[in-house]
Amino acid sequence: MDVPSGQPAAVPTPEPGDPRLARLSLNQATVKYWNLTQAVDGCLRAGLPAIGTWREPVAEMGLAKAAALLRRAGLRVSSHCRGGFLTGPDRAAALEDNRRAVDEAAELGAPCLVMVVGGMPDGERDLVGIRERVADGIAELAPYALERGVQLALEPLHPMFCADRAVLSTLGQALDLAERFDAAAVGVVVDAYHVWWDPQVWEQIARAGAGGRIASFQACDWELPIPADALLGRGMVGDGHADVRALRRAVDAAGYDGDIEVEIFNERIWSADGDDVIATLARRHVQHVL
Amino acid sequence: MDVPSGQPAAVPTPEPGDPRLARLSLNQATVKYWNLTQAVDGCLRAGLPAIGTWREPVAEMGLAKAAALLRRAGLRVSSHCRGGFLTGPDRAAALEDNRRAVDEAAELGAPCLVMVVGGMPDGERDLVGIRERVADGIAELAPYALERGVQLALEPLHPMFCADRAVLSTLGQALDLAERFDAAAVGVVVDAYHVWWDPQVWEQIARAGAGGRIASFQACDWELPIPADALLGRGMVGDGHADVRALRRAVDAAGYDGDIEVEIFNERIWSADGDDVIATLARRHVQHVL
Repeated sequence: MDVPSGQPAAVPTPEPGDPRLARLSLNQATVKYWNLTQAVDGCLRAGLPAIGTWREPVAEMGLAKAAALLRRAGLRVSSHCRGGFLTGPDRAAALEDNRRAVDEAAELGAPCLVMVVGGMPDGERDLVGIRERVADGIAELAPYALERGVQLALEPLHPMFCADRAVLSTLGQALDLAERFDAAAVGVVVDAYHVWWDPQVWEQIARAGAGGRIASFQACDWELPIPADALLGRGMVGDGHADVRALRRAVDAAGYDGDIEVEIFNERIWSADGDDVIATLARRHVQHVL
Repeated sequence: MDVPSGQPAAVPTPEPGDPRLARLSLNQATVKYWNLTQAVDGCLRAGLPAIGTWREPVAEMGLAKAAALLRRAGLRVSSHCRGGFLTGPDRAAALEDNRRAVDEAAELGAPCLVMVVGGMPDGERDLVGIRERVADGIAELAPYALERGVQLALEPLHPMFCADRAVLSTLGQALDLAERFDAAAVGVVVDAYHVWWDPQVWEQIARAGAGGRIASFQACDWELPIPADALLGRGMVGDGHADVRALRRAVDAAGYDGDIEVEIFNERIWSADGDDVIATLARRHVQHVL
């Protein structure tokens, strides 16, 4: 992870206060085995100004306490993860759970709730119909989110996850759905890992920016081989095949000036020392993203 | 494979001469451990009228002998697999190899040569540039193929294979490239496994049909979990998540009346008895494709 073979030696780790860290946010999932206190302390030690929170560690601490901790630390909350999973049989429960997630995002001061919309229920093959079910769910949730000042951030996932995690598979498709609603209510996530391969990604990023729909930009890389658990194949930017810098330039050119969140699911990275992980991602940010 | 759990009992295996087998073709890769003689004999025993050949087993037998065997057997050759791999450093060698593959397809009487265009060379991240390299290669090969009456069949692969196998990732992208050339020279493959997730697949199939660009339709299913070797996750139609019948209807509605080729890379299926495999795919064809 630190200096992968074939890569040039890493740049020096930027110090706290370095302006190049001004937009860098640690998504909590990148340091999965840290609790929220540890993750916040890690950000502060490294000089990261922002964090992306997850529901489980926030619940573990208690929402009010978590919100107070984040305020005290002076960290921006770049996003709250995650809502969605709107395709299953218990629609009412899913909607209610999403309303709670919106409430949490509001209390934490997160501008958006990341939505992983859900996959195909067992035995169902009507993908068009399942996708419309997602749209119906978003229509239910959008006014609720808007009232609370939280943007629902629809995350297109790599098509590899269409059957089991998210039937939203491209940025264009996510925008087709988002544009049915007020931009303040529904936006999109541009996650390099999920969209880097898409021949239409450049025009769709421009479209998303023009509509004020880019809720979040996430940076991580596509590594090969795909591991046994396909979810865990993400890599540090620079270790894989995605042109993350080109995507960052494109979102910037489209008017996005928000945080650049690093979200990596990878057992090897999870097992490493959290401070080392943050130092590495800060170097990679300078070297491969800015 | 025969009667997967949760599936209704299979229909009876259609007998040779059953009109429902009239468009069913066995891609040789589905019975990987059979040589060409065995595959041809298997098709004849089961009453399949067509076969999709691969270069390696054809070369093993010798091209002239293979062509004679296929003619004698009275089997249509639905496609020849495969050309492509145009993104590597030795462009001249790749083009020359593709010309040989076109020659083979012509001699075998295959209407098309399936093209898996190649992935991203090590260390390269400029996907836009790599895709243009593919276009340049197709431009070199198209006149050669046209002269020999072989259509280059551009196969968009699932985006999961963008980095390592084919930078052609969607049907729309394949058509954007194909449409730079005469339809008789360059068409596309619609492989259910690769395109089922695509929100634009329906309009792109219609576009492909309208332009006379559907060179081949391939049927197999998307199974989960993705196996350790991601290439081998294809399943018998009916065992996975893809709506293959809807795709077959769409290609038919778009004017395609060619063969429906079954190409499955799956170690479990390769290890099974070849006659059983063909019987199963014939039942699945009746049950889930027609």
